[in-house]
Amino acid sequence: MEITLTGITTTGAPHLGNYVGAILPAIEASRRQDVQSFYFLADYHALVKCQDPALVHRSRLEVAATWLALGLEVDNVIFYAQTDIPEILELTWILTCVTAKGLMNRAHAYKAAVAENLADPDKDPDKAVTMGLFSYPILMAADILMFKASKVPVGKDQTQHLEMARDIAARFNYLYGEHFVLPEAVVDEKASVLVGLDGRKMSKSYGNTIPLFEPEKALRKLIMRIKTNSLPPEAPKDPDTCTLFQIYQAFATADESAAIRQRYAQGIGWGEMKQVLFEYLNARLTEPRQRYQELLEKPDHIEQILKHGAARAREYSVPFLHQLRRAVGIRPLGG
Amino acid sequence: MEITLTGITTTGAPHLGNYVGAILPAIEASRRQDVQSFYFLADYHALVKCQDPALVHRSRLEVAATWLALGLEVDNVIFYAQTDIPEILELTWILTCVTAKGLMNRAHAYKAAVAENLADPDKDPDKAVTMGLFSYPILMAADILMFKASKVPVGKDQTQHLEMARDIAARFNYLYGEHFVLPEAVVDEKASVLVGLDGRKMSKSYGNTIPLFEPEKALRKLIMRIKTNSLPPEAPKDPDTCTLFQIYQAFATADESAAIRQRYAQGIGWGEMKQVLFEYLNARLTEPRQRYQELLEKPDHIEQILKHGAARAREYSVPFLHQLRRAVGIRPLGG
Repeated sequence: MEITLTGITTTGAPHLGNYVGAILPAIEASRRQDVQSFYFLADYHALVKCQDPALVHRSRLEVAATWLALGLEVDNVIFYAQTDIPEILELTWILTCVTAKGLMNRAHAYKAAVAENLADPDKDPDKAVTMGLFSYPILMAADILMFKASKVPVGKDQTQHLEMARDIAARFNYLYGEHFVLPEAVVDEKASVLVGLDGRKMSKSYGNTIPLFEPEKALRKLIMRIKTNSLPPEAPKDPDTCTLFQIYQAFATADESAAIRQRYAQGIGWGEMKQVLFEYLNARLTEPRQRYQELLEKPDHIEQILKHGAARAREYSVPFLHQLRRAVGIRPLGG
Repeated sequence: MEITLTGITTTGAPHLGNYVGAILPAIEASRRQDVQSFYFLADYHALVKCQDPALVHRSRLEVAATWLALGLEVDNVIFYAQTDIPEILELTWILTCVTAKGLMNRAHAYKAAVAENLADPDKDPDKAVTMGLFSYPILMAADILMFKASKVPVGKDQTQHLEMARDIAARFNYLYGEHFVLPEAVVDEKASVLVGLDGRKMSKSYGNTIPLFEPEKALRKLIMRIKTNSLPPEAPKDPDTCTLFQIYQAFATADESAAIRQRYAQGIGWGEMKQVLFEYLNARLTEPRQRYQELLEKPDHIEQILKHGAARAREYSVPFLHQLRRAVGIRPLGG
């Protein structure tokens, strides 16, 4: 059976843009019966970016609760935390020994950090660059290769990491025999990109996001803040250049969108449209938001789900690491 | 109680130079009752240099057998293989996230590789440099910091690694609180440097070594090959410029050396002195060589010793890693 693997970053609470662009398709895919899917919290990756222990902990909880609240099918997929699979860290070192440093030199994230540093007066290319930032593509390769994933759904910005995982796997296979499956990136070309409050792409770095599980009142406030033009209520309006409609459309059915399009053509007041959008989103999010709040109050329950997933994941990782250790020469000294 | 830690490289069979310079003092130290000592086979380090699985395996066996044959006090120290302590690899990743890349850029071994590459026509500084070579000081830091070793006996060429382990530990302590003990290098200034067959320092890279457990006949042959000058048997000779005497002296008591000095002054034939040296070394090495051969035939027994040591080491590493994971924010989601 085809094996797929989805990594979930655990830094920061997800927003509506994450939801429509990545989470929703991944949750839908978690119902597929024709593949074996692994979903994991990339919490050892979180240490690269976040050195606030309380935030690391809180993010793990919130992100796990988010995915469960949205309906991740944990009985159909294997859902675990990376930090519960010690074999991944051991594999990371084994892969480190076959990875060319030149490969890491070419990683986009590292190169971007160097470019920024070189624009500085003191020109230290590696200023504030940690070894975590430099070598995390190896940890990512271990995440993927450990479970022999052949398909890895990723955003466009992640395709280089998949190429690197393939390079590392191929190098290992060349040296030690065909142990690893070479993974392929699956880029969803039609993944929705949601616009944010100011009409630009919704992104944490622009500060224009709508958090996914914002309480009702706060959600309404945020939607009321969305930028519109200054046309009067009765004037016909262009939905395709309107942030309100863009967001509505990302969630609505084709029929619902068509109906709103017509109201734009007839003239709809911005206040009225904002209320329509708020009510629509709120209706859609009330139930998962409720489940999310309930889950946050049952962290033990979430931990149990993750531990159960880790036990299932380790049915794969323990024997495979054993095989890989033997391949490189680490085996019991006796018979 | 003071904690010390000694790493044992597992690449290649030890020679007489390793024996007098490092192994013998370390074996003697293993009898100390006033310290808690950890001794470990650095077999995950071996993968940086050796990608021949049969050789990796064979070296682990031979090196462990060597140390046991020479009398390592395994009941007094904790003797284990690095590859049996998965917590070390997890700690390695945690430390990777707090290590500045700039620190690794300055490592002697890496800089030497770059310098060699830049002398090449194609000037690729990182040619054939793996991430294993680049980042192994972090693995070494994990080896040391995991067991809170305050004293680490090292050769002069290793003091930089100790400095790096201190830097990494200090950075972690600064970010997350005082968890690590800052280790100190203990350099044995009077550690004997043995000369080899050709009179230069005995070293694998010069191809002038005498393997420690060479069978009797082969040992004799090698000693007969040691370079001497062309003075006739009856001429008085200078022991201090003579390779035969240098080797003899490294093993003999002061009285024995004085006696041989006198024979040099009276005139001793090179053939005779070679025979003296052979007999002396052979008498010294016969018993451990015998034990070594017996141990090689009982790999299960060695494995058992290492597994026992690993269980003892993990009494330290498991709870300490648990503490460190909590410190960075990785802890159970529930109460």
